[in-house]
Amino acid sequence: MATPNLDRIETRLKQLSQSWSSTRTGQAMGYALLGGGKRLRPRLVLSQVRVLSDSAVDVACALEMIHTYSLIHDDLPALDNDDLRRGRPTVHKAYDEATAILAGDGLLNAAFETVLDLPLDPAQKLACCRVLADASGIHGMIGGQDSDVFEKLDTVEAITDMYILKTGKLLGAALVLGAILDGRETEAPALMAIGEKLGVLFQIQDDVLELTQDTQTLGKSNNSDAQNHKTTMVALQGMDLALNEIDRLSSQVKIGLSALSVDSSATMSIINEILVRNH
Amino acid sequence: MATPNLDRIETRLKQLSQSWSSTRTGQAMGYALLGGGKRLRPRLVLSQVRVLSDSAVDVACALEMIHTYSLIHDDLPALDNDDLRRGRPTVHKAYDEATAILAGDGLLNAAFETVLDLPLDPAQKLACCRVLADASGIHGMIGGQDSDVFEKLDTVEAITDMYILKTGKLLGAALVLGAILDGRETEAPALMAIGEKLGVLFQIQDDVLELTQDTQTLGKSNNSDAQNHKTTMVALQGMDLALNEIDRLSSQVKIGLSALSVDSSATMSIINEILVRNH
Repeated sequence: MATPNLDRIETRLKQLSQSWSSTRTGQAMGYALLGGGKRLRPRLVLSQVRVLSDSAVDVACALEMIHTYSLIHDDLPALDNDDLRRGRPTVHKAYDEATAILAGDGLLNAAFETVLDLPLDPAQKLACCRVLADASGIHGMIGGQDSDVFEKLDTVEAITDMYILKTGKLLGAALVLGAILDGRETEAPALMAIGEKLGVLFQIQDDVLELTQDTQTLGKSNNSDAQNHKTTMVALQGMDLALNEIDRLSSQVKIGLSALSVDSSATMSIINEILVRNH
Repeated sequence: MATPNLDRIETRLKQLSQSWSSTRTGQAMGYALLGGGKRLRPRLVLSQVRVLSDSAVDVACALEMIHTYSLIHDDLPALDNDDLRRGRPTVHKAYDEATAILAGDGLLNAAFETVLDLPLDPAQKLACCRVLADASGIHGMIGGQDSDVFEKLDTVEAITDMYILKTGKLLGAALVLGAILDGRETEAPALMAIGEKLGVLFQIQDDVLELTQDTQTLGKSNNSDAQNHKTTMVALQGMDLALNEIDRLSSQVKIGLSALSVDSSATMSIINEILVRNH
């Protein structure tokens, strides 16, 4: 069930990128956006849509643009200073810093352009824009990046809050966007809560993987948190408690999904991929 | 007539910034946004609105957020590497590069959040988002930045096209947003054309001012184009032809404004300020 959706997402991302290809910045936007990856967020969008439409695919692609822009800017020397992403040079390595800055800006902007282009009902289109903007902004993902980079986080609560903003909000947005497109906007709060838990789970997994996997498996420089002197959940709690927390969150996510008004097995199968990932 | 509008814009920008102040990135967003400046773009929005409303002020502020974000990122070391902006340290100097990158991202995002928050008619709200997104993206302002930074522009036509994208699109968006809020969306193409001409005029003026004014008057490092090895319109045409071109564009802008269905003296008085500016 996941594979045809993934193919549609990849095909559509490629089509959307073509309109940017006449500029260096646009080429870098395409380079980053077509760099593979698990496409978790767009697939989560589609997993909540019972009748797949071209518009749903485009909304899913818009969310992936926002995720990709955040990676481009996060990887910059002034931030995480990562040279590798998904096994390839990061944008500022493949191009240069100026291009990476502009390409990130371009992708954030393009996410809104993509949704605004769609032949959706105006209220639905506004709701999608709203979810994207809220999840991505200073009270969402950017707030999480700020907290990750600038705050000294040394309690489980503080790190959890940062993970919710930095990763949870966009995963929650994925599920909420799917529900909006599916005519189930009333389930938005429940889905955002599930996404936030999934984000925390995902980030604790990242902390675990950074310590247990090599660079080649990760497709990015490992141990960069340690190099950047960040306190991770594993460092704070120890490996056993971190693994327990993953289990606990995973149960809560499953319970949340089973309480929805629709069959969420497509969503659950994507989450199962997350649970067994090694990179 | 311009002064009460300017006061409302400043007051509202301050209010909107307050919701960001709990994070370092948010503080930097406020630092940049409240750094003064002529507020040409938001004032141009309001100059096309016959009955001033809170929503119109917010749309005007959203456009100023986009302009401000573009300045923050443009000033970064990897791009123009400017230390001064409006007589104060640029964001990456007052804070650091990481903060400047995130603050720019935050302001672009906040522009959409601000418009999406408004109690406007859905079609009008979508039209405002559309204008912002189109003017700012890879086919608008970012495309112009790309062309400015990466392309070797050595003809009047190529530089003019870059000026249209880099500066004209956002000035055009200002007038178009005003018209949308005023129920005159049909005049959008005419207003975009006026804004584009105004953008070219403004940029040629910048080229002239960089060569004729000192750093203190400009409020930013002068001669940065020469330091960055950019061909300017003055270098290409000589000062006399550049000044002639400013006159020619100024006439065209005036003719365009006088052809509108409404009295545009408020818009014209802002443009007159541009025509006599020395920084």
